[in-house]
Amino acid sequence: MGIDELDEQVCPVARAIGRVGDAWTLMVLRELFLGARRFEEIRGHTGMSPQLLTRRLRELTETGIVARRLYQDRPRRFEFELTEKGADLWPVVVALNSWGERWAKPELEEPLISLTHRACGHVIEPALTCPECGERLHARAVKARMSEPMKRDRALRRDKHRQGVRPAPG
Amino acid sequence: MGIDELDEQVCPVARAIGRVGDAWTLMVLRELFLGARRFEEIRGHTGMSPQLLTRRLRELTETGIVARRLYQDRPRRFEFELTEKGADLWPVVVALNSWGERWAKPELEEPLISLTHRACGHVIEPALTCPECGERLHARAVKARMSEPMKRDRALRRDKHRQGVRPAPG
Repeated sequence: MGIDELDEQVCPVARAIGRVGDAWTLMVLRELFLGARRFEEIRGHTGMSPQLLTRRLRELTETGIVARRLYQDRPRRFEFELTEKGADLWPVVVALNSWGERWAKPELEEPLISLTHRACGHVIEPALTCPECGERLHARAVKARMSEPMKRDRALRRDKHRQGVRPAPG
Repeated sequence: MGIDELDEQVCPVARAIGRVGDAWTLMVLRELFLGARRFEEIRGHTGMSPQLLTRRLRELTETGIVARRLYQDRPRRFEFELTEKGADLWPVVVALNSWGERWAKPELEEPLISLTHRACGHVIEPALTCPECGERLHARAVKARMSEPMKRDRALRRDKHRQGVRPAPG
């Protein structure tokens, strides 16, 4: 069962996970958002093997999330940068950052990354808000309703699963 | 090189990725946010094998992201729900959802999940905004500054990497 299968699900979350829901892919995105451009720089900061980083960069380029740019001809060397599609993943990385600062650190450790909003000059923690009323959002404040195609796809998977189900381990 | 190592990085993003940056972990979170509670329900919707789902739920319980609740005694059966720490991952799943709706779907497909803000009643797409000035944020609007401990950790990794570096393949 590979994550490739997630792409077949009629669900925007599953499809996004199928493309970027992998630890090393997310680490590469972190580096690109922090300003890294070059292969060895990304390797150094992430600790990835050359094979692994090559593979992830190829996948990200194939899905149009990252673009390659030749910056040296002999030997040929490429820089990597986020496309518009890639830059649009910023909220994912910001959300991981906020959660990490809050829930995944030793007590008493100072914040590790400070974010400054260039336009207003404040150090901020980006907030998820309602574009209609401006209120800050959290999980329970929002109701998710699935479209009919998504419901049908889920029902199909559930039915297929029930036909083959054995007792649950608990 | 396992994702366990990410936990050693002095970086909130790496630490968050080390805990939830895995496709199947994220799929379990999707299910819990969509309201699934029971093992077979999560299995049916995600297509995970019992072994894989058992492992992911155990990890999520150990890291305090998910809590188990006994709902049946004979045989013993547990329900799973997000803790406060888990519910705080909502922005990650919302960000994946928004990106998936925009960038990972066939043309002409209608939105698959509609989100209604209970307080104001509008169907919305949650927006990442500046809590100081209210402006909508995107990658370039915000400057990230790393703290000294994070910079030191990155410099250390970079130096260690440079000592062992061989020519880059790309």
